Amino acid sequence: MSALPETVARPILVQKFGGSSLGTPGRIKRAARRVAASQGAGYDVVVVVSAMGDSTDRLLSLASRVAKDPAARELDQLLSTGEGVSAPLMSMALNELGVPAVSLLGFQAGIQTDRRHARARIVGLTPARIERELADGRVVVVAGFQGMGTEMDVTTLGRGGSDTTAVALAAALKAQACEIFTDVRGIYTADPRFVPSARLLTRIAYPEMLELASSGARVMHPRAVEIAEAYTMELHVRSSFHAGPGTIICSEEAIMEDRNRVRGIAHEEHVARLSVVGVPDRPGIAASIFAPLADADIAADVIVQTASHEGVTDMSFTVASADGREAERILGGVAREIGARTVLAQNGLAKVSVIGSGIRGQPGVAATMFKALSDRRINIEMISTSEVRITCIIQAERVKEAVTALHEAFKL
Amino acid sequence: MSALPETVARPILVQKFGGSSLGTPGRIKRAARRVAASQGAGYDVVVVVSAMGDSTDRLLSLASRVAKDPAARELDQLLSTGEGVSAPLMSMALNELGVPAVSLLGFQAGIQTDRRHARARIVGLTPARIERELADGRVVVVAGFQGMGTEMDVTTLGRGGSDTTAVALAAALKAQACEIFTDVRGIYTADPRFVPSARLLTRIAYPEMLELASSGARVMHPRAVEIAEAYTMELHVRSSFHAGPGTIICSEEAIMEDRNRVRGIAHEEHVARLSVVGVPDRPGIAASIFAPLADADIAADVIVQTASHEGVTDMSFTVASADGREAERILGGVAREIGARTVLAQNGLAKVSVIGSGIRGQPGVAATMFKALSDRRINIEMISTSEVRITCIIQAERVKEAVTALHEAFKL
Repeated sequence: MSALPETVARPILVQKFGGSSLGTPGRIKRAARRVAASQGAGYDVVVVVSAMGDSTDRLLSLASRVAKDPAARELDQLLSTGEGVSAPLMSMALNELGVPAVSLLGFQAGIQTDRRHARARIVGLTPARIERELADGRVVVVAGFQGMGTEMDVTTLGRGGSDTTAVALAAALKAQACEIFTDVRGIYTADPRFVPSARLLTRIAYPEMLELASSGARVMHPRAVEIAEAYTMELHVRSSFHAGPGTIICSEEAIMEDRNRVRGIAHEEHVARLSVVGVPDRPGIAASIFAPLADADIAADVIVQTASHEGVTDMSFTVASADGREAERILGGVAREIGARTVLAQNGLAKVSVIGSGIRGQPGVAATMFKALSDRRINIEMISTSEVRITCIIQAERVKEAVTALHEAFKL
Repeated sequence: MSALPETVARPILVQKFGGSSLGTPGRIKRAARRVAASQGAGYDVVVVVSAMGDSTDRLLSLASRVAKDPAARELDQLLSTGEGVSAPLMSMALNELGVPAVSLLGFQAGIQTDRRHARARIVGLTPARIERELADGRVVVVAGFQGMGTEMDVTTLGRGGSDTTAVALAAALKAQACEIFTDVRGIYTADPRFVPSARLLTRIAYPEMLELASSGARVMHPRAVEIAEAYTMELHVRSSFHAGPGTIICSEEAIMEDRNRVRGIAHEEHVARLSVVGVPDRPGIAASIFAPLADADIAADVIVQTASHEGVTDMSFTVASADGREAERILGGVAREIGARTVLAQNGLAKVSVIGSGIRGQPGVAATMFKALSDRRINIEMISTSEVRITCIIQAERVKEAVTALHEAFKL
């Protein structure tokens, strides 16, 4: 009996490097050494790169010097050149280490998107070219953040775009893992600049990370986490500059220890609150308030509607401080149309959130949170909750104190 | 009798702007105003742009900092981002002037090339997208210098690439004219930095311009002139910074006056001469000398073979100074193989050429040239001629004097 030689497919690893990890030629070479080590360890490696350091800002500044309000399509063509520079540089750096490599732009990598410029969604992924290059023994370096819309137009994926590219590729290629290299060591129980005793998490579940990311922790963009959860793709957040275990973002089932705990404290400064007061309480009234804001690309965050009283209600919500003035202007018009009494705006607020799957069905968590803030005489302006998160809106100048108090209260 | 409204196609104008014409946002805006004026004058305009100012040098410097010898494919991906930046900026600047515009990269513009990276040739042009955008009333801004090779890989066209893009598009679109905007006012009878009395030419024929371009006048690349001649596309070389008539490059038939004259004096410094001495004179010997140089991408220019004497001959030719040392090394090996006696190399030479269709069949032109140089005691090291050009190789330190003497001798 003779045995035919068996072709063993090498596991695929996707490694994403952010802009600060690629800020200089020296940093690109350092990242290339990491990639080379992974290839040497037996992986087929796909690298996803962001634009180098501040190159996106430099391109935006050029645009602002030729036009006040550049068309989104042209801005996408322009901004996509940022990753168009870093991808071949990474490929060259790998070649220099003796690692065969090839760089692909979004359209070459088969990343199809819808045509919503500046915030395109990936609608299809045809990784035939990537798979062929991997089979030929090459590391494939993909320009993140970009894709091809209709008519071969270049699109960009908006904030967190390169993370999204990495996770989408990892899912399409059935990668064994997706590593996100960044300028922090992983996900912490709170912002280490606020809470020196903050602890690096070994693992965090997708829903918890989603809440953390949406609540102000900027390490990962929620979109990328959503896609990872949908495909149960483990994400490994690590530092480009330090060795160390980093944090693995995975399903709740994969976290054996500490399942019922509060996982971390997130915060976000620069929050404004808007209240539409004396709104006639009838069906469709919420839509008539929020649709014009969405049209102006203003995201309303924590939304609270008071109980209706004598046919009128108050609607309060938060937006990013930068959007506050524009939101107030829009709501002024809306209030007149729907017959609301007035619009109130308040700036200088902040969000502080307690996050963890342990919150689910444990009323004690909310009570502990409110007591910790109350003990410090920090006033709660608004409250919002989800299954795995409790958020309080407070005065911005108290946010550091609040995060520290909560970190202590939950013994993180 | 009723007349149906007649659709009159607007004439198409291709306008190409070089890197120095786009060096800053202010210069891009100035170029955009020119384009807007042409559109306002009734043309459908296609703009071809080079990379901004020194951006290609900046990209090359980045590459050199991550790899000693970057792969040509990756270098093409990298360098193409230069025009990828200037094209959308030009489009935005046009929008800002109220002119609808759209930017297209080489692959979007339908520019297909072979796969020879860094020196690709255009093998096909499918301008469907450009025609559709023009029909929709938009100015189309095309990134010059780049195309799409096989497998959607980005290629670049090498030196003079953006000129080539402009002329190829003008031919494919059956444009009425192709304007080349540059940092000089047009084609002169000699380099104005050498000869203050040099005169701007109103018109010059394709073969004359080809010889001028090949003989050191850097305004237009010979490839672009060749394509223009093949399609009888008139090229209009003009200054970006000054109003003025510029120079029209056209067929000889279109030049009514001065048909039998010397048109101009060209020169090129930094020339080295190599001589393979005592070459056994047998068939195929020239190929065995020049093929290894071509493989090393070294262009041999003026080639002179002495009459064979006792079965051996000498072969001399010029190369760019920068290639001199490498050529000498290669020829050392060749000389041993073919049994030649030795290889001599001389640096510090220059080329000076008299150009004009009037040279054809007029021996007096050569005599006048040699006498003018001899009167100044400038030694002629080598001579080479074509139908419309006579070139002498002289000592580099005499080149300015030689150009001035010839400009006077031919009363330009």
